[in-house]
Amino acid sequence: MPQTPDFSHLPDRPAPQEMSPEAFRAAGQTIVERIARYFEAVRETPVLPDIAPGSIRKQVPERAPDQGKPFEAIMADFEEVLYPGLTHWNSPRYMAYFPSSASAPGALGEMLAAGFGQNNMLWRTSPAGTELEVRVMEWLRDLFGLSDTFFGEILDTASTSSLVALAAAREKAGDLRLRSRGLAGRAEVPRLIVYASDQAHSSIDKAAMTLGYGLEQVRKIPSDEAFRMRADALRAAVGSDLEAGHRPLAVVGTLGTTSSTSVDPAAAIADIAEEFGLWFHIDAAYAGSAAAVPEKRALFEGWERADSIVVNPHKWLFTPMDFSAFFVRDREKLRSAFSLVPEYLTSDLDSDEELVNLMDYGFQLGRRWRSLKMWMILRWYGAEGIRDRLRYHMELADGLARIIEEQDGVELVAPVPFATVCFRFRPQGWEAGSEEAEQRLEGLNRRVMDRANATGQVFLSHTKLDGVYTLRLAIGHPRTTAGDVRAVWDLLTGLARAISGEMT
Amino acid sequence: MPQTPDFSHLPDRPAPQEMSPEAFRAAGQTIVERIARYFEAVRETPVLPDIAPGSIRKQVPERAPDQGKPFEAIMADFEEVLYPGLTHWNSPRYMAYFPSSASAPGALGEMLAAGFGQNNMLWRTSPAGTELEVRVMEWLRDLFGLSDTFFGEILDTASTSSLVALAAAREKAGDLRLRSRGLAGRAEVPRLIVYASDQAHSSIDKAAMTLGYGLEQVRKIPSDEAFRMRADALRAAVGSDLEAGHRPLAVVGTLGTTSSTSVDPAAAIADIAEEFGLWFHIDAAYAGSAAAVPEKRALFEGWERADSIVVNPHKWLFTPMDFSAFFVRDREKLRSAFSLVPEYLTSDLDSDEELVNLMDYGFQLGRRWRSLKMWMILRWYGAEGIRDRLRYHMELADGLARIIEEQDGVELVAPVPFATVCFRFRPQGWEAGSEEAEQRLEGLNRRVMDRANATGQVFLSHTKLDGVYTLRLAIGHPRTTAGDVRAVWDLLTGLARAISGEMT
Repeated sequence: MPQTPDFSHLPDRPAPQEMSPEAFRAAGQTIVERIARYFEAVRETPVLPDIAPGSIRKQVPERAPDQGKPFEAIMADFEEVLYPGLTHWNSPRYMAYFPSSASAPGALGEMLAAGFGQNNMLWRTSPAGTELEVRVMEWLRDLFGLSDTFFGEILDTASTSSLVALAAAREKAGDLRLRSRGLAGRAEVPRLIVYASDQAHSSIDKAAMTLGYGLEQVRKIPSDEAFRMRADALRAAVGSDLEAGHRPLAVVGTLGTTSSTSVDPAAAIADIAEEFGLWFHIDAAYAGSAAAVPEKRALFEGWERADSIVVNPHKWLFTPMDFSAFFVRDREKLRSAFSLVPEYLTSDLDSDEELVNLMDYGFQLGRRWRSLKMWMILRWYGAEGIRDRLRYHMELADGLARIIEEQDGVELVAPVPFATVCFRFRPQGWEAGSEEAEQRLEGLNRRVMDRANATGQVFLSHTKLDGVYTLRLAIGHPRTTAGDVRAVWDLLTGLARAISGEMT
Repeated sequence: MPQTPDFSHLPDRPAPQEMSPEAFRAAGQTIVERIARYFEAVRETPVLPDIAPGSIRKQVPERAPDQGKPFEAIMADFEEVLYPGLTHWNSPRYMAYFPSSASAPGALGEMLAAGFGQNNMLWRTSPAGTELEVRVMEWLRDLFGLSDTFFGEILDTASTSSLVALAAAREKAGDLRLRSRGLAGRAEVPRLIVYASDQAHSSIDKAAMTLGYGLEQVRKIPSDEAFRMRADALRAAVGSDLEAGHRPLAVVGTLGTTSSTSVDPAAAIADIAEEFGLWFHIDAAYAGSAAAVPEKRALFEGWERADSIVVNPHKWLFTPMDFSAFFVRDREKLRSAFSLVPEYLTSDLDSDEELVNLMDYGFQLGRRWRSLKMWMILRWYGAEGIRDRLRYHMELADGLARIIEEQDGVELVAPVPFATVCFRFRPQGWEAGSEEAEQRLEGLNRRVMDRANATGQVFLSHTKLDGVYTLRLAIGHPRTTAGDVRAVWDLLTGLARAISGEMT
């Protein structure tokens, strides 16, 4: 057939050279050594950097260099320019927001994955990546005590997982054919309503906004005195939306809210979701990890009845960013919400029952090999090792809560179901409740936090609960010890004593 | 103030032990060595694994182990169970879909980032991560010849970037208050229309579906004989939607389509977008990297006038998954489309002008430290090194195109503007055009591809162009040489000769 090709059309200059394996070895070992030194030093390193906004960017040239630089020069700049601008999420004294740590086995998993360049959009583009993802999600499902009716996939963030869930919720309104026809300009499509408690994470609002439901269509259901969604208020809200001719689409229950880690009543919400045909999504991004501990399972009662669940191992399961575990009860609903296969992604293998193309279960096509780090983490710690660490963190938080309960001049602002403690300093004789009194308390607590954070010995964050300015101390780093909690508490109480003295 | 705390409430058992720095060092060096050996061996490794769906999952136990395992045992399983199931995107003979390679400096950047656990959702949660992201996106902007009116951020995939763009497009319809009120159940909201060519990527459909516009609201504008969007047809479609009372919202131009890498006429589309007030988004996920080469800039003429642009360095800029570079011309529009700041994420620093909180520019809150690998890549190669490699790939593709043009029994199916060659074998005397003839040609070319892929010497993919079954050969791995192209071409022509003989 074809005559001899004329290969002289191909360039005859030598191909540009890649870094040699020897140079890669040397550079890689430098990096390993640097990270090992970091793990050794991070406990003594100020948690927050002391720099002004804009100072890092100013030290990085405005343009990429024309000619390449040796690896040693790049590492030297890492040391001088970038390292001083890190916030140490990986410090045992990082107690702000929620934990997110690069444990040693987690970091090793990321490093190994980085060399092999997998992209598991289709089974055939990474059989190992695809099948390990499915398997590792089965491991997590089992670890959390969920039944095998759930199918799991790994997404990047809880924001994405919740967005995907609230998009799949449209499958509950199949009559409206929203996927193909859309939401706009159609008299037969009513307002689509999403319910979540007034404590739900902002990602739910962002998802509703992004998906076209609109921020105003998120009903913020009031929570009770322990910041848990009131099921009676949910039922009433659904009823009044139905009366108004709207379409209740989905309800989000939060198990472990961001502000106080409160736990919505999943079973009661499931009853209402089933009664009204709502998609029931559970945001357990933070606290879901605690379901690995059997004695905590009671807090999760009813989550088994959800349509979808998100748990973020990159919070409290020692997994480096990013890893959001997304479970869905009816895998086919998720697939029918998202699958769309153009010719260039078809394959003869598509009819094989054992074959999963993960791109069919969300809007993102490309997918990193995230399962490898979780496989490394679960195998290195073992399920018992994971449970032991989670229990230890909850013992630390319980202990601190008891200390606070007994101590004068400080009070818990919320129950402590997991490992995050919400409290405020309130010196004896200081009023609370009136606007003026609350402002004074806010002033005290804000200063305590700011000064504590400025010492570099700890990083705390704050929230507001029922209008009360609240400090949050979230425990969850694998190297945090009782000694850390003790030292932080001494620091905070000392500051509170000094600052309240200044304010009196 | 507070009386002495009773620290006996804290657990007095020893804290669970993390992996020691020594063990981490040893494990890390094992991994570095393993990756170095991989880089040495991958050229000789079959590109596609020879395994059946389900076989990997079956070799991984159904549950995580109860007790932790030593690192050596984990690596042994990596070797035996997972490694045989990899698809080698990192092979110089990976020529399917589009390239996505873990170059040595890119892998090193990922490895370094993996140890430091940054999450740059807020400036304060990673000043270095945040500021390096802003700076590195300025480097890319400059490399691609875009002006400093563009603001850049790093997202995970082009699917996400295009979704974010088409959500921000709502800011062009500010009168409708879609962000707060939503798209559904409102008589004043017409159908919202998105335009893209019939060659646009499926991620545009998925975005329109996800955002609530609906699949049917994506107008597939016909393309010309070189698979470029026809501007006259775009204008006509916008006109007829306006007549029908719909609201044209956005147009997506693709510079480097997935099937054939054709280039839509950006300047002509920009004229229409400006005339009708459409958001103009450019999907240059694959080909945008070529804008680094000045002599290719003519193909990008007019992209400067887009509202948003996505380029994926994890395709053809030697960057490991994931790294999608998203540029937006009016940064404030993007921010007003997405920003939503709950109390627990506020900070005293928020008013600082130098401070960027990247979470405000999309729906995802958590963000990996992706800028570090790009900083490593651009510094190690240098801009000239990047250009040299891109040019070499385009010379290889040009050369192969010329070979095909001159050779009997094979034909180009599309022009070759970048480094992807679309062709089919068509032996002398074989008809084309009729259904029967096309089926026969499809049979031949499909068999050539399947048998070539089965040899392990190359991985190719296919598409359909104007109904023609087309083979795609995408060059873009940093280690691909003229020798690779020659060997692959010899393999393919040999197979075509043999199979067409069998079919005659």
